[in-house]
Amino acid sequence: MDALEVLFTRRSIRKYTDAPVSDADLKLLLRAAMAAPSANNAQPWQFIVVRDQARREAIARCHPYAQMAPKAPLCIVVCGDLGKEKTPGFWVQDCSAAIQNIMLAARALGLGTVWTGVHPVEERVTAIRQAFGIPDGVIPLGIVVVGHPAQPFSEQDRYDEHKVHYDQW
Amino acid sequence: MDALEVLFTRRSIRKYTDAPVSDADLKLLLRAAMAAPSANNAQPWQFIVVRDQARREAIARCHPYAQMAPKAPLCIVVCGDLGKEKTPGFWVQDCSAAIQNIMLAARALGLGTVWTGVHPVEERVTAIRQAFGIPDGVIPLGIVVVGHPAQPFSEQDRYDEHKVHYDQW
Repeated sequence: MDALEVLFTRRSIRKYTDAPVSDADLKLLLRAAMAAPSANNAQPWQFIVVRDQARREAIARCHPYAQMAPKAPLCIVVCGDLGKEKTPGFWVQDCSAAIQNIMLAARALGLGTVWTGVHPVEERVTAIRQAFGIPDGVIPLGIVVVGHPAQPFSEQDRYDEHKVHYDQW
Repeated sequence: MDALEVLFTRRSIRKYTDAPVSDADLKLLLRAAMAAPSANNAQPWQFIVVRDQARREAIARCHPYAQMAPKAPLCIVVCGDLGKEKTPGFWVQDCSAAIQNIMLAARALGLGTVWTGVHPVEERVTAIRQAFGIPDGVIPLGIVVVGHPAQPFSEQDRYDEHKVHYDQW
């Protein structure tokens, strides 16, 4: 699928069919995530692949905006691993780029996604940490909910010239 | 260009030819940035397009890892606008997704980029703020240096199975 079409038609998809996400597609999503840039190429990320129904229900209990998780075949919890940072403080940016890559690779495969934020909302971090046994020094940043879309992709142009400044503010 | 090829062949490019980046390509990069997801769709980003030579030299003085900026035809300073956030604390993730979109759109156009981090390194934030007159409440997150590549794109598979966990840590 054309890259620019992917960029401009990726939208949050919150309704899914019952079709599972294949192992091949899952691996491609994770490869795309790990192809993201990171500060000093530290790649300070970890991924929890969640297909188990009970654990997807746990996500919904942990996160007020993840109510679609139990109805999706797949969730990916993207975590920052502070111990892998070479330049402390950049893990959020690194892992956000990884998440965006997952979402775009999914769009290219015809899969729908929605990014539900965890960090820096402490009660969500604590709940997700407990639900998945995430150790200290690893912080769940966000959860990508993935499935075959039961709603259309559509293009929306958000370009806003007021947000563009030339050579100075 | 194929989306998956873009995702897997985007690499940091630090050497550029003398060719300028066209206005059409610049606009497409900014449209791609603004097509990124954001918490509550707040779109809390601002962009400073830097083509002026003196200002690109200023970037190199402000940032130890942006020495390629004076030799690139274009830099884009991506800033978070705290006043536009609907859910405080997510602007870094939102703007990081926007940066990643810029980098991928550039790759699709055959342009090379490198992401130089600014926030949370306070001395870089202060220096860039002063150089461009960025107001309080707006924080420079990173600078994307853009140009026509004078070095090849190449694919590198960073997939690491040790970073993948299934249903629990």
